[in-house]
Amino acid sequence: MYTRPLARLIEELQRLPGIGSKTAQRLALHLLNRPAGEVEALAQALLEAKQTVKHCSLCFNWSAEDPCEICRSPQRDRLLWCVVADVRDLIAVERTREFKGLYHVLGGLISPINGIGAEQLRIRELVARVAREKPQELIFALSPSVEGEVTMHVVKDYLRPIAPNLRMTRLAFGLPMGSELEYADEVTLARALEARQEL
Amino acid sequence: MYTRPLARLIEELQRLPGIGSKTAQRLALHLLNRPAGEVEALAQALLEAKQTVKHCSLCFNWSAEDPCEICRSPQRDRLLWCVVADVRDLIAVERTREFKGLYHVLGGLISPINGIGAEQLRIRELVARVAREKPQELIFALSPSVEGEVTMHVVKDYLRPIAPNLRMTRLAFGLPMGSELEYADEVTLARALEARQEL
Repeated sequence: MYTRPLARLIEELQRLPGIGSKTAQRLALHLLNRPAGEVEALAQALLEAKQTVKHCSLCFNWSAEDPCEICRSPQRDRLLWCVVADVRDLIAVERTREFKGLYHVLGGLISPINGIGAEQLRIRELVARVAREKPQELIFALSPSVEGEVTMHVVKDYLRPIAPNLRMTRLAFGLPMGSELEYADEVTLARALEARQEL
Repeated sequence: MYTRPLARLIEELQRLPGIGSKTAQRLALHLLNRPAGEVEALAQALLEAKQTVKHCSLCFNWSAEDPCEICRSPQRDRLLWCVVADVRDLIAVERTREFKGLYHVLGGLISPINGIGAEQLRIRELVARVAREKPQELIFALSPSVEGEVTMHVVKDYLRPIAPNLRMTRLAFGLPMGSELEYADEVTLARALEARQEL
């Protein structure tokens, strides 16, 4: 129904996650109505990001340079690492501005149902890096789900034999800030009671 | 927080309508994980669509050729035109496969609240085209809203003096197919009663 180049653009946009055929049509028609410079800027940004952004060879963060800015920074505590599932989680931790160590991006969580086992994640790379650089502490910042728990325990079991003195910690469980106690689910509330803190 | 080319891609994606910062991040990170060829195909499709797709000079449909495929088709009834607000509405009518005439895309609906008056739409072009090509009938396929009604009556008033014998019709109102009578709103039901058809 659409003229060929427009149909092709709609088709390419539809490959994106969460973009259905209606949204792809809306986006394509929107772009035709925008100045050429704006469309060129988007195309250019796509090509440049894809060409220049690679995984950091140390922590597997996305970066235009290798090692990434965090791994190269002299302000970072090189003995404290935070283990995250993906780059979005890394960014979430960075946004707190409370963490001044390094990262290790696993590239996912173990999920047999999705065909993701330990060998698909960057656990081997983490083990080698821990053996080489000997950090003092690893903080596991994984989602509190079955996949997150399994992944954390598998990684811990890989690391324990090679780094018997490595401190391994996890994020605290408890009430989210600004939440209403009465709406907290019982598992969260039980965890918050268990981990109660002295006044 | 993100490496510069990635931040720039996220920023460009966020300019798209309905794409917020979370979605833009998700799309950008997804694209980094895809093969380079896929990202290049998207960038290429954007540039090619923007460079080659223009408004048809007759009906204002988007087309890589001028006049558009519909206006050039010898199979089309050149005396029956359908007036639509935008290209998405044209595609909706085409999908029915019931309409074999030509189109005129107004480019929107009159909407004083959004600063869109008759002069922002392609009404002048429609008047000139009607005077030149003398169609027999114009079907208004505009959304049944205040803006659609106003636009239809304004266009009709422009055309009546120059084409006193032109038949002007509108889409029928009634129950949508597959709907439940009990859930029909009263305005639609009243219109369906009024326009009742002989068995």
